Amino acid sequence: MASRALAAWRQLVLLALLPHLLLLLDAAAARQCFWPGQAPEDPGCLSWRVMVEANNARGWRTVPAQCVGYVKGYMTRGQYLRDLAGVMEQAADYADQVAAGAGADPDGLDAWVFDIDDTCLSNLPYYETKQFGYARPLPPLFLHHSRYRSDDDDSETSPSIQSRAYDPSAFKAWASKEACPGIPPVLGLFTALLDKGFKVFLLSGRDEETLGPCTAGNLEAEGFSGYERLIMRTPEYRGQSSSVFKSAMRKQLVDEGYRIRGNVGDQWSDLQGGCAGDRVFKIPNPMYFVP
Amino acid sequence: MASRALAAWRQLVLLALLPHLLLLLDAAAARQCFWPGQAPEDPGCLSWRVMVEANNARGWRTVPAQCVGYVKGYMTRGQYLRDLAGVMEQAADYADQVAAGAGADPDGLDAWVFDIDDTCLSNLPYYETKQFGYARPLPPLFLHHSRYRSDDDDSETSPSIQSRAYDPSAFKAWASKEACPGIPPVLGLFTALLDKGFKVFLLSGRDEETLGPCTAGNLEAEGFSGYERLIMRTPEYRGQSSSVFKSAMRKQLVDEGYRIRGNVGDQWSDLQGGCAGDRVFKIPNPMYFVP
Repeated sequence: MASRALAAWRQLVLLALLPHLLLLLDAAAARQCFWPGQAPEDPGCLSWRVMVEANNARGWRTVPAQCVGYVKGYMTRGQYLRDLAGVMEQAADYADQVAAGAGADPDGLDAWVFDIDDTCLSNLPYYETKQFGYARPLPPLFLHHSRYRSDDDDSETSPSIQSRAYDPSAFKAWASKEACPGIPPVLGLFTALLDKGFKVFLLSGRDEETLGPCTAGNLEAEGFSGYERLIMRTPEYRGQSSSVFKSAMRKQLVDEGYRIRGNVGDQWSDLQGGCAGDRVFKIPNPMYFVP
Repeated sequence: MASRALAAWRQLVLLALLPHLLLLLDAAAARQCFWPGQAPEDPGCLSWRVMVEANNARGWRTVPAQCVGYVKGYMTRGQYLRDLAGVMEQAADYADQVAAGAGADPDGLDAWVFDIDDTCLSNLPYYETKQFGYARPLPPLFLHHSRYRSDDDDSETSPSIQSRAYDPSAFKAWASKEACPGIPPVLGLFTALLDKGFKVFLLSGRDEETLGPCTAGNLEAEGFSGYERLIMRTPEYRGQSSSVFKSAMRKQLVDEGYRIRGNVGDQWSDLQGGCAGDRVFKIPNPMYFVP
Protein backbone atom coordinates (compact mmCIF):
# COMPACT_ATOMS: atom_id res chain seq x y z
CA MET A 1 0.00 0.00 0.00
CA ALA A 2 2.86 2.34 0.87
CA SER A 3 4.69 1.67 -2.35
CA ARG A 4 1.46 2.11 -4.32
CA ALA A 5 0.96 5.48 -2.68
CA LEU A 6 4.59 6.35 -3.45
CA ALA A 7 4.13 5.44 -7.11
CA ALA A 8 0.98 7.51 -7.36
CA TRP A 9 2.75 10.41 -5.65
CA ARG A 10 5.71 10.19 -8.02
CA GLN A 11 3.34 10.22 -10.96
CA LEU A 12 1.55 13.23 -9.53
CA VAL A 13 4.82 15.07 -9.02
CA LEU A 14 5.87 14.35 -12.61
CA LEU A 15 2.54 15.47 -13.98
CA ALA A 16 2.61 18.58 -11.83
CA LEU A 17 6.17 19.43 -12.89
CA LEU A 18 5.58 18.90 -16.60
CA PRO A 19 3.87 22.25 -17.31
CA HIS A 20 6.59 24.07 -15.39
CA LEU A 21 9.23 22.29 -17.40
CA LEU A 22 7.46 23.18 -20.63
CA LEU A 23 7.17 26.80 -19.54
CA LEU A 24 10.86 26.91 -18.66
CA LEU A 25 11.79 25.42 -22.03
CA ASP A 26 9.46 27.79 -23.79
CA ALA A 27 10.99 30.77 -22.01
CA ALA A 28 14.48 29.57 -22.89
CA ALA A 29 13.47 29.12 -26.52
CA ALA A 30 11.82 32.54 -26.59
CA ARG A 31 14.94 34.13 -25.15
CA GLN A 32 17.03 32.43 -27.79
CA CYS A 33 14.65 33.29 -30.63
CA PHE A 34 13.71 36.83 -29.85
CA TRP A 35 16.58 38.08 -27.73
CA PRO A 36 19.56 36.00 -28.83
CA GLY A 37 22.01 38.67 -27.62
CA GLN A 38 20.95 40.83 -30.55
CA ALA A 39 17.94 42.55 -31.96
CA PRO A 40 14.96 40.40 -32.89
CA GLU A 41 15.41 40.03 -36.62
CA ASP A 42 12.12 41.12 -38.12
CA PRO A 43 12.83 40.54 -41.83
CA GLY A 44 11.03 43.67 -43.05
CA CYS A 45 12.62 45.93 -40.42
CA LEU A 46 16.02 44.43 -41.20
CA SER A 47 15.48 45.33 -44.87
CA TRP A 48 14.54 48.86 -43.86
CA ARG A 49 17.56 49.25 -41.57
CA VAL A 50 19.97 48.08 -44.28
CA MET A 51 18.34 50.49 -46.76
CA VAL A 52 19.00 53.31 -44.30
CA GLU A 53 22.66 52.31 -43.87
CA ALA A 54 23.21 51.99 -47.64
CA ASN A 55 21.56 55.40 -48.19
CA ASN A 56 18.78 53.84 -50.25
CA ALA A 57 16.07 55.07 -47.85
CA ARG A 58 16.19 58.85 -47.50
CA GLY A 59 14.16 61.67 -46.06
CA TRP A 60 12.25 59.55 -43.53
CA ARG A 61 10.90 61.45 -40.54
CA THR A 62 10.22 58.70 -38.02
CA VAL A 63 11.08 55.03 -37.62
CA PRO A 64 8.28 53.01 -39.31
CA ALA A 65 5.63 52.25 -36.68
CA GLN A 66 6.06 48.49 -36.97
CA CYS A 67 9.84 48.80 -36.47
CA VAL A 68 9.94 50.81 -33.23
CA GLY A 69 10.43 47.68 -31.10
CA TYR A 70 12.94 46.34 -33.60
CA VAL A 71 15.00 49.53 -33.49
CA LYS A 72 14.97 49.56 -29.69
CA GLY A 73 16.11 45.93 -29.69
CA TYR A 74 18.78 46.63 -32.30
CA MET A 75 20.15 49.60 -30.34
CA THR A 76 20.11 48.03 -26.90
CA ARG A 77 20.66 44.30 -27.26
CA GLY A 78 24.13 44.09 -28.76
CA GLN A 79 23.89 44.24 -32.55
CA TYR A 80 24.36 48.02 -32.72
CA LEU A 81 27.55 47.87 -30.67
CA ARG A 82 28.72 44.86 -32.67
CA ASP A 83 28.14 46.72 -35.96
CA LEU A 84 29.78 49.85 -34.58
CA ALA A 85 32.86 47.96 -33.41
CA GLY A 86 33.20 46.45 -36.91
CA VAL A 87 33.12 49.88 -38.55
CA MET A 88 35.66 51.28 -36.07
CA GLU A 89 37.98 48.32 -36.81
CA GLN A 90 37.80 49.14 -40.52
CA ALA A 91 38.59 52.78 -39.73
CA ALA A 92 41.52 51.85 -37.47
CA ASP A 93 42.99 49.54 -40.17
CA TYR A 94 42.70 52.32 -42.71
CA ALA A 95 44.27 54.86 -40.31
CA ASP A 96 47.21 52.48 -39.82
CA GLN A 97 47.73 52.37 -43.59
CA VAL A 98 47.58 56.17 -43.88
CA ALA A 99 49.91 56.64 -40.90
CA ALA A 100 52.37 54.11 -42.37
CA GLY A 101 52.27 55.94 -45.70
CA ALA A 102 52.91 59.35 -44.12
CA GLY A 103 56.39 58.27 -43.04
CA ALA A 104 58.37 59.32 -39.98
CA ASP A 105 58.09 63.07 -40.40
CA PRO A 106 54.49 64.08 -40.98
CA ASP A 107 53.71 67.76 -41.47
CA GLY A 108 50.85 67.74 -38.98
CA LEU A 109 48.18 68.33 -41.63
CA ASP A 110 46.63 64.87 -41.77
CA ALA A 111 43.14 65.39 -40.38
CA TRP A 112 40.07 63.39 -39.40
CA VAL A 113 36.59 64.77 -38.98
CA PHE A 114 34.09 63.36 -36.48
CA ASP A 115 30.44 64.22 -36.15
CA ILE A 116 29.23 64.49 -32.53
CA ASP A 117 25.60 63.36 -32.07
CA ASP A 118 25.37 59.58 -32.19
CA THR A 119 28.95 59.48 -33.38
CA CYS A 120 30.96 60.60 -30.30
CA LEU A 121 28.02 61.06 -27.93
CA SER A 122 24.91 58.92 -27.76
CA ASN A 123 21.37 60.30 -27.80
CA LEU A 124 19.85 56.87 -27.38
CA PRO A 125 18.40 57.69 -23.93
CA TYR A 126 16.62 60.68 -25.46
CA TYR A 127 15.25 58.91 -28.55
CA GLU A 128 14.16 55.92 -26.51
CA THR A 129 11.90 58.13 -24.40
CA LYS A 130 10.56 59.57 -27.66
CA GLN A 131 9.84 56.09 -29.08
CA PHE A 132 12.09 57.03 -32.01
CA GLY A 133 9.62 59.59 -33.25
CA TYR A 134 6.68 57.26 -33.21
CA ALA A 135 3.74 58.36 -31.04
CA ARG A 136 1.61 55.61 -29.64
CA PRO A 137 -1.93 56.88 -29.26
CA LEU A 138 -2.93 57.16 -25.61
CA PRO A 139 -6.39 56.19 -24.42
CA PRO A 140 -8.46 59.40 -24.04
CA LEU A 141 -8.72 58.78 -20.28
CA PHE A 142 -5.01 59.43 -19.79
CA LEU A 143 -4.53 62.32 -22.16
CA HIS A 144 -4.80 65.02 -19.51
CA HIS A 145 -2.88 63.15 -16.85
CA SER A 146 0.55 64.73 -16.42
CA ARG A 147 2.26 61.36 -16.10
CA TYR A 148 1.32 60.57 -19.70
CA ARG A 149 2.44 63.87 -21.16
CA SER A 150 5.95 64.02 -22.50
CA ASP A 151 8.14 66.95 -21.47
CA ASP A 152 7.97 68.44 -24.94
CA ASP A 153 4.19 68.53 -25.08
CA ASP A 154 2.95 71.89 -26.12
CA SER A 155 -0.71 72.02 -25.26
CA GLU A 156 -1.29 74.82 -27.75
CA THR A 157 -0.12 72.85 -30.76
CA SER A 158 0.00 69.14 -30.00
CA PRO A 159 -2.87 67.03 -31.14
CA SER A 160 -3.64 64.10 -28.88
CA ILE A 161 -1.77 61.82 -31.24
CA GLN A 162 1.22 63.95 -32.08
CA SER A 163 4.09 63.17 -34.33
CA ARG A 164 7.28 62.98 -32.33
CA ALA A 165 9.61 63.61 -35.23
CA TYR A 166 12.56 65.87 -34.45
CA ASP A 167 11.64 68.39 -31.76
CA PRO A 168 14.31 71.12 -31.50
CA SER A 169 13.35 72.46 -28.08
CA ALA A 170 13.10 69.05 -26.41
CA PHE A 171 16.41 68.04 -27.96
CA LYS A 172 18.02 71.25 -26.71
CA ALA A 173 16.75 70.53 -23.21
CA TRP A 174 18.26 67.04 -23.39
CA ALA A 175 21.61 68.23 -24.79
CA SER A 176 21.84 70.96 -22.12
CA LYS A 177 21.89 68.29 -19.43
CA GLU A 178 25.38 67.23 -20.65
CA ALA A 179 24.24 63.68 -20.00
CA CYS A 180 24.94 62.09 -23.40
CA PRO A 181 27.01 58.96 -22.81
CA GLY A 182 30.22 58.68 -24.84
CA ILE A 183 30.26 55.85 -27.38
CA PRO A 184 33.21 53.63 -26.36
CA PRO A 185 34.32 52.18 -29.75
CA VAL A 186 34.33 55.71 -31.23
CA LEU A 187 36.36 57.02 -28.28
CA GLY A 188 38.78 54.15 -28.97
CA LEU A 189 39.28 55.27 -32.58
CA PHE A 190 39.47 58.95 -31.54
CA THR A 191 42.24 58.19 -29.04
CA ALA A 192 44.13 55.93 -31.46
CA LEU A 193 44.08 58.69 -34.11
CA LEU A 194 45.47 61.26 -31.68
CA ASP A 195 48.19 58.78 -30.71
CA LYS A 196 49.13 58.40 -34.39
CA GLY A 197 49.45 62.18 -34.78
CA PHE A 198 46.27 62.93 -36.72
CA LYS A 199 44.54 66.24 -36.09
CA VAL A 200 40.96 65.57 -35.09
CA PHE A 201 38.15 68.04 -35.79
CA LEU A 202 34.72 67.68 -34.24
CA LEU A 203 32.04 69.03 -36.57
CA SER A 204 28.50 69.33 -35.29
CA GLY A 205 25.24 70.82 -36.53
CA ARG A 206 24.41 71.75 -32.92
CA ASP A 207 23.87 75.46 -32.38
CA GLU A 208 27.08 77.01 -31.07
CA GLU A 209 25.49 79.93 -29.22
CA THR A 210 23.08 77.89 -27.11
CA LEU A 211 24.84 74.52 -26.92
CA GLY A 212 28.54 75.37 -27.24
CA PRO A 213 29.65 75.19 -23.59
CA CYS A 214 27.50 72.18 -22.63
CA THR A 215 28.66 70.25 -25.69
CA ALA A 216 32.31 70.92 -24.87
CA GLY A 217 31.65 69.93 -21.24
CA ASN A 218 29.84 66.74 -22.20
CA LEU A 219 32.67 65.74 -24.60
CA GLU A 220 35.33 66.42 -21.96
CA ALA A 221 33.45 64.44 -19.31
CA GLU A 222 33.17 61.48 -21.66
CA GLY A 223 36.88 61.45 -22.49
CA PHE A 224 36.88 63.26 -25.81
CA SER A 225 39.75 65.66 -25.23
CA GLY A 226 42.87 66.59 -27.18
CA TYR A 227 41.01 67.37 -30.40
CA GLU A 228 42.17 70.26 -32.57
CA ARG A 229 38.92 72.22 -32.83
CA LEU A 230 35.22 71.96 -32.04
CA ILE A 231 33.26 73.40 -34.95
CA MET A 232 29.58 74.09 -34.36
CA ARG A 233 26.80 75.81 -36.26
CA THR A 234 27.14 79.59 -36.17
CA PRO A 235 24.12 81.91 -36.60
CA GLU A 236 24.83 82.42 -40.33
CA TYR A 237 24.24 78.68 -40.97
CA ARG A 238 20.99 78.42 -38.99
CA GLY A 239 18.30 76.89 -41.15
CA GLN A 240 20.77 75.46 -43.65
CA SER A 241 20.95 71.72 -44.21
CA SER A 242 23.58 69.80 -42.32
CA SER A 243 25.17 68.81 -45.62
CA VAL A 244 25.59 72.44 -46.78
CA PHE A 245 26.92 73.60 -43.40
CA LYS A 246 29.35 70.72 -42.98
CA SER A 247 30.65 70.90 -46.56
CA ALA A 248 31.44 74.60 -46.04
CA MET A 249 33.26 73.89 -42.77
CA ARG A 250 35.30 71.08 -44.32
CA LYS A 251 36.22 73.31 -47.23
CA GLN A 252 37.64 75.81 -44.73
CA LEU A 253 39.82 73.07 -43.25
CA VAL A 254 41.06 72.08 -46.71
CA ASP A 255 41.71 75.75 -47.51
CA GLU A 256 43.84 75.89 -44.33
CA GLY A 257 45.95 73.10 -45.79
CA TYR A 258 44.54 70.09 -43.95
CA ARG A 259 44.15 66.79 -45.78
CA ILE A 260 40.92 65.16 -44.57
CA ARG A 261 42.03 61.54 -44.45
CA GLY A 262 38.93 60.17 -42.77
CA ASN A 263 35.44 61.33 -41.90
CA VAL A 264 33.21 59.56 -39.39
CA GLY A 265 29.49 60.18 -38.97
CA ASP A 266 26.16 58.48 -38.35
CA GLN A 267 24.38 60.38 -41.17
CA TRP A 268 25.10 60.32 -44.88
CA SER A 269 24.80 64.13 -44.76
CA ASP A 270 28.00 64.07 -42.65
CA LEU A 271 29.79 62.08 -45.31
CA GLN A 272 28.70 63.51 -48.66
CA GLY A 273 29.09 66.90 -50.34
CA GLY A 274 32.31 68.86 -50.81
CA CYS A 275 35.64 67.86 -49.25
CA ALA A 276 34.06 64.77 -47.71
CA GLY A 277 37.45 63.18 -47.06
CA ASP A 278 39.58 60.46 -48.62
CA ARG A 279 37.45 57.82 -46.95
CA VAL A 280 34.22 58.00 -45.01
CA PHE A 281 32.88 55.71 -42.30
CA LYS A 282 29.13 55.39 -41.76
CA ILE A 283 28.19 54.64 -38.16
CA PRO A 284 24.84 52.85 -37.87
CA ASN A 285 21.83 54.95 -36.94
CA PRO A 286 18.31 53.65 -37.49
CA MET A 287 16.82 56.21 -35.05
CA TYR A 288 16.55 59.33 -37.18
CA PHE A 289 17.51 60.89 -40.51
CA VAL A 290 19.21 64.27 -40.95
CA PRO A 291 19.12 65.74 -44.49
CA MET B 1 -1.80 -5.40 -8.32
CA ALA B 2 -3.24 -4.49 -11.73
CA SER B 3 -3.69 -0.84 -10.83
CA ARG B 4 -0.16 -0.74 -9.40
CA ALA B 5 1.18 -2.14 -12.65
CA LEU B 6 -0.92 0.40 -14.57
CA ALA B 7 0.44 3.25 -12.49
CA ALA B 8 4.01 2.08 -13.01
CA TRP B 9 3.32 1.76 -16.74
CA ARG B 10 1.85 5.23 -16.92
CA GLN B 11 4.89 6.62 -15.17
CA LEU B 12 7.16 4.76 -17.56
CA VAL B 13 5.28 6.11 -20.57
CA LEU B 14 5.53 9.65 -19.24
CA LEU B 15 9.22 9.26 -18.56
CA ALA B 16 9.77 7.71 -21.97
CA LEU B 17 7.83 10.47 -23.72
CA LEU B 18 9.61 13.32 -21.96
CA PRO B 19 12.81 13.27 -24.06
CA HIS B 20 10.75 13.15 -27.27
CA LEU B 21 8.72 16.11 -26.12
CA LEU B 22 11.88 18.00 -25.30
CA LEU B 23 13.35 17.17 -28.70
CA LEU B 24 10.17 18.32 -30.45
CA LEU B 25 10.22 21.60 -28.56
CA ASP B 26 13.89 22.03 -29.28
CA ALA B 27 13.37 21.39 -32.98
CA ALA B 28 10.51 23.86 -33.10
CA ALA B 29 12.62 26.47 -31.36
CA ALA B 30 15.56 25.81 -33.68
CA ARG B 31 13.37 26.14 -36.76
CA GLN B 32 12.04 29.41 -35.52
CA CYS B 33 15.49 30.67 -34.51
CA PHE B 34 17.62 29.68 -37.45
CA TRP B 35 15.27 29.47 -40.42
CA PRO B 36 12.51 31.96 -39.76
CA GLY B 37 11.88 32.29 -43.51
CA GLN B 38 15.15 34.16 -43.90
CA ALA B 39 18.87 33.73 -43.63
CA PRO B 40 20.21 32.50 -40.31
CA GLU B 41 21.20 35.71 -38.60
CA ASP B 42 24.75 35.15 -37.47
CA PRO B 43 25.42 38.44 -35.64
CA GLY B 44 29.00 38.83 -36.85
CA CYS B 45 28.16 38.00 -40.47
CA LEU B 46 25.21 40.38 -40.31
CA SER B 47 27.60 43.13 -39.15
CA TRP B 48 29.91 42.32 -42.03
CA ARG B 49 27.10 42.32 -44.59
CA VAL B 50 25.82 45.71 -43.43
CA MET B 51 29.38 47.09 -43.57
CA VAL B 52 29.57 45.95 -47.20
CA GLU B 53 26.24 47.59 -48.07
CA ALA B 54 27.20 50.86 -46.34
CA ASN B 55 30.58 50.86 -48.14
CA ASN B 56 32.45 50.62 -44.84
CA ALA B 57 34.10 47.32 -45.81
CA ARG B 58 36.10 47.69 -49.02
CA GLY B 59 38.60 45.80 -51.08
CA TRP B 60 37.67 42.33 -49.75
CA ARG B 61 38.52 39.45 -52.08
CA THR B 62 36.36 36.64 -50.75
CA VAL B 63 33.44 36.27 -48.35
CA PRO B 64 34.90 35.68 -44.85
CA ALA B 65 35.27 31.92 -44.34
CA GLN B 66 32.88 31.82 -41.40
CA CYS B 67 30.19 33.68 -43.40
CA VAL B 68 30.00 31.47 -46.51
CA GLY B 69 26.97 29.58 -45.16
CA TYR B 70 25.41 32.82 -43.99
CA VAL B 71 25.80 34.44 -47.43
CA LYS B 72 24.30 31.41 -49.13
CA GLY B 73 21.38 31.51 -46.71
CA TYR B 74 20.97 35.24 -47.19
CA MET B 75 20.94 34.95 -50.98
CA THR B 76 18.66 31.93 -51.24
CA ARG B 77 16.24 31.99 -48.32
CA GLY B 78 14.28 35.17 -48.92
CA GLN B 79 16.07 38.08 -47.24
CA TYR B 80 18.02 39.05 -50.37
CA LEU B 81 14.87 39.28 -52.47
CA ARG B 82 13.10 41.10 -49.64
CA ASP B 83 15.92 43.66 -49.41
CA LEU B 84 16.04 43.99 -53.20
CA ALA B 85 12.30 44.58 -53.45
CA GLY B 86 12.60 47.35 -50.83
CA VAL B 87 15.32 49.13 -52.78
CA MET B 88 13.35 48.84 -56.03
CA GLU B 89 10.31 50.35 -54.28
CA GLN B 90 12.40 53.32 -53.19
CA ALA B 91 13.66 53.70 -56.76
CA ALA B 92 10.15 53.49 -58.22
CA ASP B 93 8.85 56.13 -55.77
CA TYR B 94 11.72 58.41 -56.71
CA ALA B 95 11.13 57.80 -60.45
CA ASP B 96 7.47 58.78 -59.96
CA GLN B 97 8.56 62.07 -58.40
CA VAL B 98 11.01 62.79 -61.23
CA ALA B 99 8.45 61.87 -63.88
CA ALA B 100 5.83 64.08 -62.20
CA GLY B 101 8.35 66.96 -62.10
CA ALA B 102 9.23 66.61 -65.80
CA GLY B 103 5.72 67.63 -66.78
CA ALA B 104 3.73 66.55 -69.82
CA ASP B 105 6.32 67.30 -72.50
CA PRO B 106 9.64 65.76 -71.61
CA ASP B 107 12.55 66.25 -74.00
CA GLY B 108 13.55 62.58 -73.95
CA LEU B 109 16.82 63.23 -72.16
CA ASP B 110 15.94 61.90 -68.70
CA ALA B 111 18.13 58.83 -68.33
CA TRP B 112 18.71 55.94 -65.94
CA VAL B 113 21.81 53.78 -65.83
CA PHE B 114 21.72 50.12 -64.83
CA ASP B 115 24.66 47.85 -64.18
CA ILE B 116 24.20 44.30 -65.54
CA ASP B 117 25.90 41.64 -63.39
CA ASP B 118 23.89 41.02 -60.23
CA THR B 119 21.79 44.04 -61.06
CA CYS B 120 19.81 42.94 -64.14
CA LEU B 121 21.18 39.40 -64.41
CA SER B 122 22.04 37.13 -61.51
CA ASN B 123 25.35 35.28 -61.14
CA LEU B 124 24.23 33.54 -57.99
CA PRO B 125 24.33 30.05 -59.61
CA TYR B 126 27.96 30.70 -60.56
CA TYR B 127 29.13 32.08 -57.22
CA GLU B 128 27.32 29.36 -55.31
CA THR B 129 29.35 26.69 -57.09
CA LYS B 130 32.46 28.70 -56.20
CA GLN B 131 31.48 28.91 -52.53
CA PHE B 132 31.64 32.70 -52.89
CA GLY B 133 35.38 32.60 -53.38
CA TYR B 134 36.07 30.59 -50.31
CA ALA B 135 37.94 27.32 -50.85
CA ARG B 136 37.26 24.62 -48.32
CA PRO B 137 40.38 22.53 -47.96
CA LEU B 138 39.81 19.02 -49.32
CA PRO B 139 41.16 15.96 -47.55
CA PRO B 140 44.38 14.87 -49.37
CA LEU B 141 42.67 11.64 -50.41
CA PHE B 142 40.27 13.52 -52.72
CA LEU B 143 42.62 16.06 -54.17
CA HIS B 144 43.32 14.13 -57.37
CA HIS B 145 39.78 12.90 -57.85
CA SER B 146 38.15 14.78 -60.72
CA ARG B 147 34.85 15.10 -58.88
CA TYR B 148 36.48 17.33 -56.31
CA ARG B 149 38.23 19.61 -58.77
CA SER B 150 36.39 22.71 -59.83
CA ASP B 151 36.21 23.53 -63.54
CA ASP B 152 38.61 26.45 -63.11
CA ASP B 153 41.36 24.38 -61.55
CA ASP B 154 44.65 25.00 -63.22
CA SER B 155 46.92 22.19 -62.17
CA GLU B 156 50.01 24.24 -62.99
CA THR B 157 49.19 27.01 -60.56
CA SER B 158 46.57 25.89 -58.05
CA PRO B 159 47.78 24.88 -54.64
CA SER B 160 45.69 22.20 -52.96
CA ILE B 161 43.94 24.90 -50.94
CA GLN B 162 43.35 27.53 -53.59
CA SER B 163 41.75 30.89 -53.30
CA ARG B 164 38.65 31.07 -55.47
CA ALA B 165 38.56 34.84 -55.69
CA TYR B 166 37.49 36.27 -59.04
CA ASP B 167 38.53 34.01 -61.86
CA PRO B 168 38.15 35.76 -65.26
CA SER B 169 38.23 32.67 -67.47
CA ALA B 170 35.74 30.68 -65.39
CA PHE B 171 33.44 33.71 -65.24
CA LYS B 172 33.68 34.14 -69.01
CA ALA B 173 32.75 30.50 -69.50
CA TRP B 174 29.72 30.99 -67.24
CA ALA B 175 28.62 34.26 -68.93
CA SER B 176 28.98 32.68 -72.38
CA LYS B 177 26.29 30.17 -71.50
CA GLU B 178 23.72 33.02 -71.52
CA ALA B 179 22.18 31.29 -68.53
CA CYS B 180 22.12 34.16 -66.01
CA PRO B 181 18.60 34.43 -64.62
CA GLY B 182 17.00 37.88 -64.77
CA ILE B 183 16.33 39.49 -61.39
CA PRO B 184 12.54 40.05 -61.30
CA PRO B 185 12.28 43.17 -59.07
CA VAL B 186 14.93 44.91 -61.21
CA LEU B 187 13.10 43.95 -64.40
CA GLY B 188 10.00 45.47 -62.79
CA LEU B 189 11.76 48.81 -62.26
CA PHE B 190 13.36 48.67 -65.72
CA THR B 191 9.95 48.18 -67.38
CA ALA B 192 8.29 50.87 -65.25
CA LEU B 193 11.01 53.36 -66.24
CA LEU B 194 10.56 52.64 -69.94
CA ASP B 195 6.80 53.08 -69.50
CA LYS B 196 7.41 56.48 -67.92
CA GLY B 197 9.55 57.57 -70.88
CA PHE B 198 13.00 57.37 -69.32
CA LYS B 199 15.91 56.37 -71.52
CA VAL B 200 17.63 53.36 -69.99
CA PHE B 201 21.33 52.67 -70.52
CA LEU B 202 22.91 49.37 -69.53
CA LEU B 203 26.52 49.86 -68.47
CA SER B 204 28.68 46.81 -67.85
CA GLY B 205 32.32 46.12 -67.15
CA ARG B 206 32.00 42.90 -69.19
CA ASP B 207 34.35 42.72 -72.18
CA GLU B 208 32.47 43.79 -75.30
CA GLU B 209 34.55 41.85 -77.80
CA THR B 210 34.20 38.44 -76.16
CA LEU B 211 30.91 38.81 -74.28
CA GLY B 212 28.94 41.37 -76.31
CA PRO B 213 26.59 39.08 -78.26
CA CYS B 214 25.95 36.60 -75.44
CA THR B 215 25.22 39.41 -72.97
CA ALA B 216 22.72 41.00 -75.37
CA GLY B 217 21.14 37.57 -75.93
CA ASN B 218 20.92 36.80 -72.23
CA LEU B 219 19.32 40.18 -71.52
CA GLU B 220 16.78 39.75 -74.31
CA ALA B 221 15.88 36.24 -73.18
CA GLU B 222 15.27 37.50 -69.63
CA GLY B 223 12.99 40.32 -70.74
CA PHE B 224 15.40 43.25 -70.69
CA SER B 225 14.54 44.83 -74.02
CA GLY B 226 13.70 48.35 -75.12
CA TYR B 227 16.75 49.95 -73.56
CA GLU B 228 18.53 52.78 -75.36
CA ARG B 229 22.06 51.41 -75.48
CA LEU B 230 24.17 48.56 -74.13
CA ILE B 231 27.59 49.96 -73.16
CA MET B 232 30.34 47.42 -72.48
CA ARG B 233 34.06 47.58 -71.86
CA THR B 234 36.01 48.29 -75.06
CA PRO B 235 39.66 47.23 -75.50
CA GLU B 236 40.96 50.68 -74.48
CA TYR B 237 39.46 50.27 -70.99
CA ARG B 238 40.76 46.75 -70.37
CA GLY B 239 42.64 46.64 -67.09
CA GLN B 240 41.08 49.88 -65.82
CA SER B 241 38.99 49.84 -62.67
CA SER B 242 35.23 49.59 -63.07
CA SER B 243 34.88 53.00 -61.44
CA VAL B 244 37.18 54.73 -63.96
CA PHE B 245 35.57 53.00 -66.95
CA LYS B 246 32.00 53.65 -65.83
CA SER B 247 32.64 57.28 -64.89
CA ALA B 248 34.04 57.90 -68.38
CA MET B 249 31.03 56.25 -70.04
CA ARG B 250 28.58 58.24 -67.91
CA LYS B 251 30.42 61.44 -68.76
CA GLN B 252 29.88 60.67 -72.46
CA LEU B 253 26.14 60.35 -71.81
CA VAL B 254 26.08 63.68 -69.95
CA ASP B 255 28.09 65.26 -72.79
CA GLU B 256 25.41 64.00 -75.19
CA GLY B 257 22.87 65.97 -73.17
CA TYR B 258 21.35 63.21 -71.04
CA ARG B 259 20.43 63.92 -67.43
CA ILE B 260 21.24 60.82 -65.38
CA ARG B 261 18.30 60.82 -62.99
CA GLY B 262 18.99 57.46 -61.40
CA ASN B 263 21.77 54.90 -61.30
CA VAL B 264 21.28 51.32 -60.13
CA GLY B 265 24.08 48.91 -59.30
CA ASP B 266 25.19 46.21 -56.89
CA GLN B 267 28.69 47.70 -56.42
CA TRP B 268 29.64 51.06 -54.98
CA SER B 269 32.04 51.37 -57.94
CA ASP B 270 28.91 51.56 -60.15
CA LEU B 271 27.56 54.42 -58.09
CA GLN B 272 30.50 56.66 -57.27
CA GLY B 273 32.90 58.73 -59.36
CA GLY B 274 31.98 61.33 -62.00
CA CYS B 275 28.43 61.86 -63.28
CA ALA B 276 27.11 59.23 -60.87
CA GLY B 277 23.55 60.46 -61.29
CA ASP B 278 21.08 62.54 -59.27
CA ARG B 279 20.34 59.57 -57.04
CA VAL B 280 21.93 56.15 -56.76
CA PHE B 281 20.43 52.85 -55.62
CA LYS B 282 22.66 50.19 -54.10
CA ILE B 283 21.43 46.67 -54.74
CA PRO B 284 22.60 44.18 -52.10
CA ASN B 285 25.57 42.01 -52.96
CA PRO B 286 27.51 40.19 -50.24
CA MET B 287 29.07 37.77 -52.78
CA TYR B 288 31.95 39.77 -54.21
CA PHE B 289 33.53 43.22 -54.34
CA VAL B 290 34.51 45.09 -57.52
CA PRO B 291 36.86 48.08 -57.04
